[in-house]
Amino acid sequence: MKKPNLFYAQSGGVTSVINASACGVIETARKYKDKIGTVYAGRNGIVGALNEELINTNKETERSIAALRSTPAGAFGSCRYKLKSYAENKQEYERLMDVFYAHNIKYFLYNGGGDSQDTANKLSKLSIKKGFPITCIGIPKTVDNDLPKTDNCPGFGSVAKYVAVSIREAGLDVASMSASSTKVFVLEVMGRHAGWIAGASGLASEREGDAPHIILFPEIAFNKKNFLTKVKASVKKFGYCAIVVSEGAQYRDGRFLAETGGRDAFGHAQLGGVAPFVANMVKESLGYKYHWAVADYLQRSARHVASATDVDQAYAVGKAAVEFALKGKNAVMPIIIRGKGKSYSWKIGEAKLSDVANIEKKMPRSYISKDGFHITEKAKRYFAPLIKGEDYPPYKNGLPQYARLKNILAKKKLESWVET
Amino acid sequence: MKKPNLFYAQSGGVTSVINASACGVIETARKYKDKIGTVYAGRNGIVGALNEELINTNKETERSIAALRSTPAGAFGSCRYKLKSYAENKQEYERLMDVFYAHNIKYFLYNGGGDSQDTANKLSKLSIKKGFPITCIGIPKTVDNDLPKTDNCPGFGSVAKYVAVSIREAGLDVASMSASSTKVFVLEVMGRHAGWIAGASGLASEREGDAPHIILFPEIAFNKKNFLTKVKASVKKFGYCAIVVSEGAQYRDGRFLAETGGRDAFGHAQLGGVAPFVANMVKESLGYKYHWAVADYLQRSARHVASATDVDQAYAVGKAAVEFALKGKNAVMPIIIRGKGKSYSWKIGEAKLSDVANIEKKMPRSYISKDGFHITEKAKRYFAPLIKGEDYPPYKNGLPQYARLKNILAKKKLESWVET
Repeated sequence: MKKPNLFYAQSGGVTSVINASACGVIETARKYKDKIGTVYAGRNGIVGALNEELINTNKETERSIAALRSTPAGAFGSCRYKLKSYAENKQEYERLMDVFYAHNIKYFLYNGGGDSQDTANKLSKLSIKKGFPITCIGIPKTVDNDLPKTDNCPGFGSVAKYVAVSIREAGLDVASMSASSTKVFVLEVMGRHAGWIAGASGLASEREGDAPHIILFPEIAFNKKNFLTKVKASVKKFGYCAIVVSEGAQYRDGRFLAETGGRDAFGHAQLGGVAPFVANMVKESLGYKYHWAVADYLQRSARHVASATDVDQAYAVGKAAVEFALKGKNAVMPIIIRGKGKSYSWKIGEAKLSDVANIEKKMPRSYISKDGFHITEKAKRYFAPLIKGEDYPPYKNGLPQYARLKNILAKKKLESWVET
Repeated sequence: MKKPNLFYAQSGGVTSVINASACGVIETARKYKDKIGTVYAGRNGIVGALNEELINTNKETERSIAALRSTPAGAFGSCRYKLKSYAENKQEYERLMDVFYAHNIKYFLYNGGGDSQDTANKLSKLSIKKGFPITCIGIPKTVDNDLPKTDNCPGFGSVAKYVAVSIREAGLDVASMSASSTKVFVLEVMGRHAGWIAGASGLASEREGDAPHIILFPEIAFNKKNFLTKVKASVKKFGYCAIVVSEGAQYRDGRFLAETGGRDAFGHAQLGGVAPFVANMVKESLGYKYHWAVADYLQRSARHVASATDVDQAYAVGKAAVEFALKGKNAVMPIIIRGKGKSYSWKIGEAKLSDVANIEKKMPRSYISKDGFHITEKAKRYFAPLIKGEDYPPYKNGLPQYARLKNILAKKKLESWVET
């Protein structure tokens, strides 16, 4: 019997370390050449499986695969594509099974967030029912840090480090300028549903007066009066005010701050994000000169300032996923378990996909200070180890050198996929 | 006779390496203890001299001063404050002279851009006329790279590196997502009058298809039709389009792109910068999903990804300024002279302040590609060495450790300054 092949796919928004997980998967699979045939990667994620666009990673050199460890974003392409339920779109699941069957794929490793783990879980069950059982292992990934069971999500630690480093640096800039110029700086960060990323920026504040002075969380209903009072107090006391605002910051009724602006001369919805909105509110009410930044993709692709802890964990969950598959486990996901000791330690554990699928882990209220504008010591103890350690990519001519894969597709064996 | 003291001030927008110049000044001055008494730094720049707020840097430890080399922003505070002409505001110049005289300051080192060099030049002349000659030496600093005479300005190389690294990383992110989601990414960078910073991002593009695909310069009149054609072609050919836009991008008639938006529901000027404006234009015309980022202060404070060349040069101009002063030079500024050889080399030269004051060096047209949307090979040869080398700050607990100075003020000797 031919050795079974393995299919790996990246899903959803990418991170600066999702390729480190891919590296862990491929390097580990290559160590078990007696048990695993070819490692295929989906071109643009699961869509690659539907389209039978399977990248043959065996065609990549050892060096290229090793370079994935320090390469941000999705080297095989990712996608925002959620499979419907089997009842709603039977054909999709059957197509996946057909492709897997045609290419002798018996291991499916899905690197993504809650949605992806749901898909992997469903496929696992279905494949058993259909008599061609596929081992489905989830690999956690999300900058949002919102997966349950795992102590933290690979991808989060590096964004956390980026935002903490950035607000520390920009804070020093504003402090320099504040006597005669800019007094308020607003940095917008990701996190539409939870304030994990915004919260992590609070690590930069080690002593009284350090930036950030104010963090605006989606979890805390925005109160304009309290906010402005806080800004004024910070400017009075420290000379300036550095603010981190989550893109998901919202009013009590659930409206996003960013949505409440108006329309431009052409009747288009206002273009700016929440940072310019908040900055302008300060200007209008208090008259302070402001600057604002929107980090957007820069924060989740900033491999140049990745957390070494995050890189190690991303690699480890990729490696563990292959090991789980070979041990005969199914419908599970490796997770990060934090040690109980005083100094940080972690190990790999496992969770059932059914326990992680479609569940969002919110940031505990106990992580947010009483006044709602900063994080607590408890939160700092949680966040701090996740950003620890530097793991610089190699540089050439002043620029980070990232993997350039060949991404050669396997020969197709089936008819083209036409979604019906 | 008491040894003369030295006064150092930081001016204008700060950079990630202006403190490296301060480090060069203070460390060098400390080596000449027989010739230089106290090194004072202006609290918040020249305003500190007017207010007689002189930071006594002798109170700082060797270690703290050494740490300035890897600390971004202005450790003593900077200011946006342009002295008027002597005719317009005689009192200001006389106050400066009074403060310098009272504190036996005979060396004035002014770390800034063209405006600052103008001030230093005027003060030098005036002090001779008044019979209390002050040696005035300029120290070049500006992220804008717009000072004449010098091959490049300390501060620029690190911003250049930041924007090139950032667009490379974000470009990989968009490439990963483009099949099913975001196809266009717009990064807004600084440079209101010249495209030096935007241009440097072009270094990230090493092979065909690499980000950035389009750069929008202030020097090239924005043409919507040509721009959209280029975006469409990039998406068609590479699957996505990464755009870097200078905040100074403008129409043929000189209006900034960012200004042409409308007003919101409350009648306020639209808040967004040029990045959201350009992104929205693409969406409206071509329908592509977009993301945008505004780097703002992050780019000029990003010491964590500074250019080693830039740090070295920033230190060297600080050091040279002290040496120039001790050699009896006056009204000059150390500059960077590029070697003629094939491999990059540089040395310190000098320029008269009168030759650099108030002159803006524009980016040559030969640095911009014929179609106006990218940089030429000639530009790459100019930019490339400036971002070379990494010079990481020390980290502790995952965060860069930046200098925390005591900033102790010298005792005042004069009446308070009241601007009339």
